[in-house]
Amino acid sequence: MAVEFRMPHDVVYYEADVTGKLSLPMIYNLAILSSTQQAIDLNIGPEYTHAKGLGWVVLQQLVTINRRPKDGETITLATKAKQFNPFFAKREYRLIDAAGNDLVIMDGLFSMIDMNKRKLARIPKDMAEAYQPEHVRKIPRAPEVTPFDETREADFVQDYFVRYLDIDSNHHVNNSKYAEWMSDVLPVEFLTSHEPTAMNIKYEHEVLYGNKIKSEVQLVDNVTKHRIWFGDVLSAEATIEWTTASN
Amino acid sequence: MAVEFRMPHDVVYYEADVTGKLSLPMIYNLAILSSTQQAIDLNIGPEYTHAKGLGWVVLQQLVTINRRPKDGETITLATKAKQFNPFFAKREYRLIDAAGNDLVIMDGLFSMIDMNKRKLARIPKDMAEAYQPEHVRKIPRAPEVTPFDETREADFVQDYFVRYLDIDSNHHVNNSKYAEWMSDVLPVEFLTSHEPTAMNIKYEHEVLYGNKIKSEVQLVDNVTKHRIWFGDVLSAEATIEWTTASN
Repeated sequence: MAVEFRMPHDVVYYEADVTGKLSLPMIYNLAILSSTQQAIDLNIGPEYTHAKGLGWVVLQQLVTINRRPKDGETITLATKAKQFNPFFAKREYRLIDAAGNDLVIMDGLFSMIDMNKRKLARIPKDMAEAYQPEHVRKIPRAPEVTPFDETREADFVQDYFVRYLDIDSNHHVNNSKYAEWMSDVLPVEFLTSHEPTAMNIKYEHEVLYGNKIKSEVQLVDNVTKHRIWFGDVLSAEATIEWTTASN
Repeated sequence: MAVEFRMPHDVVYYEADVTGKLSLPMIYNLAILSSTQQAIDLNIGPEYTHAKGLGWVVLQQLVTINRRPKDGETITLATKAKQFNPFFAKREYRLIDAAGNDLVIMDGLFSMIDMNKRKLARIPKDMAEAYQPEHVRKIPRAPEVTPFDETREADFVQDYFVRYLDIDSNHHVNNSKYAEWMSDVLPVEFLTSHEPTAMNIKYEHEVLYGNKIKSEVQLVDNVTKHRIWFGDVLSAEATIEWTTASN
C-alpha cells in the first residue's frame, strides 16, 4: 500500500482569484508542492533527482473539483503514489477541507527524463520503492482530452509571452502557467459566472522563456476545449468542464 | 507603542523564481498578507472596511533587501503601524529569518478611499486606534523615486495586458503585479546575474482588467529606473538597486 503524505495548507489571498476562491492554476501548484514535499521527506527530492541527472516531467493531469477552497481556509494536501512501471508513474492528489471532504481530486501521470540527453529515462528502483506504489506492467490510460472541432475557428484566441517568473527553480515553465493561459483567454463574464468542475490537461511540448505562445479555446455549452501553440507545435491541450455559478 | 503582529510563513517553490529565492513580487504579497491578517485579528479586516464602503490603497513602498529567503525556508512576517494621521498611514513590514535577522524591511504608505465615490476618505478613528500607531500631524515623506532621464529613450520596453488573475478579491490589480512587469522587462541575463537590494515604488494611477500597459526601464550602472504607462497616463514608477550576484 502506498504511503499517503499529508501537509496542512492555509489558502492565502494571492492564491485566490477575484471570486476569493483558490485559483485554477494554484490547484496545480499545491499538488506539486505536496508531492515534492513527500519526496524531500523520503530523501528523494529535487536534490536527489538532480544529482542523478534526472527530472520528473508531468504528462497529464485529470482534475475533479467539488469545491474550490476560500481565501483564509485551512486545507490538507494529500498525495500518494498509485501505480508505477519502469517508465511511468501515476500519483493521486487530494485537497481536503477541515471536515474531511475531498475538495479537489487529481490524478497525475509522470515520467522521468535524463536532463542532459533530454530523453525518457528509467525511474530508479530505489526511488519507486520509497513510495511503495502498486507495480504494474501497464498504467491504465486516462481519458483523452476532447479534441478541437477542426471544422471551425476558435472562439477566443490570445497571445502570451513566457515570462521570467513563469520559470521555476527547475529551469522549466511552472506547469500551472498552462492553466493560467487557458483560463485567461476566456471572457471575464464567463469566468465570473462559471465555476470549473473538472479539467483534463495533456502536456505535449515544453515552451521556453521568451517564447510567444498562442492560447485558443472553443466553447460548447459548459465545456471549453483548449490548445496552447508554440508556432505550429502543439504544446498542451485541455478540456475544462464548468457549471453556472453565482460566486 | 504600536502592536507588532507576527506570523510564520514557509516559502514554497511557486513563490520562488528561477534562482530558488523568494521572487521580488512575492515580497509585496507577503507584506500585504501580514497586515491583512493583523487587521482580521483586530476585527478591522476587509469585511469591516468593505461594510463601511472603504478600502485601503497603497501609495508608496520602500523596500530594503538584505537577503531573499530560499524555497523551503521558514520565515516570520512582522508588521506594525508606524504613523497615522487622519488621511495617511505608514506601516512597517519585516521578513525575519530563523536566526532573527531582518531579511527584508519595507515601509508602506497607505490612504483610504471611499469605494463608491472613488475619492480620498478619512481613516476611521476606531480603526486607527486598534493599531496603536503614533499619531502625527504630518507623515514624513519617503524619498522620491529617481526620475527617468527624459533626454534619452528607455533601454527596454515591453507591453503587457492586465490578466484575469492579476485582479484579486478586492477587485483591484494585485500590487505585486507592478513589480512583476518591472522586473520582467529586464533581460534574463541581467536578472540572473544581479540581486535586488532596494526598491522604491510609487503608485500613481490604477490599471484595470484588460488594459494594455507598457513597462519601460533605463539601466544605469546597478540601478534600474522603471515606469508603467497606461496610454499616456503614468501608472507607477520605481527605482530598483541591484548588486552583482552569482546566484
